[in-house]
Amino acid sequence: MQDVLKSPDIPACLRICAGTDGSVTQLLEVLTGKTIKVVTIEQHIMKATDDIAKLLDIDRGDEVNWRLVTLNANNTVYVLAKSLSPLKRMPHAVKEDIMRADKPIGAILREHKLETRRDILKIEIINSKFFEGIPVLSREYRIIYENNILMWINECFPVDDRWRM
Amino acid sequence: MQDVLKSPDIPACLRICAGTDGSVTQLLEVLTGKTIKVVTIEQHIMKATDDIAKLLDIDRGDEVNWRLVTLNANNTVYVLAKSLSPLKRMPHAVKEDIMRADKPIGAILREHKLETRRDILKIEIINSKFFEGIPVLSREYRIIYENNILMWINECFPVDDRWRM
Repeated sequence: MQDVLKSPDIPACLRICAGTDGSVTQLLEVLTGKTIKVVTIEQHIMKATDDIAKLLDIDRGDEVNWRLVTLNANNTVYVLAKSLSPLKRMPHAVKEDIMRADKPIGAILREHKLETRRDILKIEIINSKFFEGIPVLSREYRIIYENNILMWINECFPVDDRWRM
Repeated sequence: MQDVLKSPDIPACLRICAGTDGSVTQLLEVLTGKTIKVVTIEQHIMKATDDIAKLLDIDRGDEVNWRLVTLNANNTVYVLAKSLSPLKRMPHAVKEDIMRADKPIGAILREHKLETRRDILKIEIINSKFFEGIPVLSREYRIIYENNILMWINECFPVDDRWRM
């Protein structure tokens, strides 16, 4: 287990969401008792830079779906999530869903019955402009499908009392 | 979301563990801050009865690994978990780990880099002899691997103050 998740300063509900290898949206729905609303801040197709190509293990210039969303319930933002997905690795039906956006990634994977695994790469406390003045727990992980990286995800969780549920 | 998980009588930490489509052991480790101890109560190979064959979508008489364990931390039992696994569907290395027991299933899948999905079948409140006098939240789910049922699991969580962490 990552040491940062042992900190008593981080509410238990947040530690769980940041520590799961399953769907965060599903955990948030159980926690809040509400359907989670995915709000898309930005979504576009881009050519992979060197850095992104390295992150996704693809070639520079390959097409990547870039998506920035928030996960919300009760008019509260619980997560800011950025995802990078190489288009060439995405099954056709999944691609449509991801690009139409406003649908949680866990739900998309479940709906299309994809068998995957999630590798957590890093968990750390950072500062973020989005949650200004609030410490942020940031984690990075990859969703692996058919032995390739289907998606790289960075989730940012504000560390404050909104998690004391 | 299953309605039973909305009940305010069920501690939030328990609702999360019972609602995840990821590893329960991993969530318990984050919650308790301890390494979870798997204690095997019973483990044996059996021939599938008609009921078990139906549950696992295999033939009657096929060999099945039957495993009953508890997940523990701080000398407290958090989960009683029964699993049924058809031997013929298990990759060789995984088979050895499952039968050697005392290793959490999530950790085994992760270690062998298996891509899977978990389908939750049922969540309900029941009585159980094991947790006598305590209501029990019971859930059943299947772990799917290469489009087949790799494992059927029933987890029982005692509903009491041990979850108020």
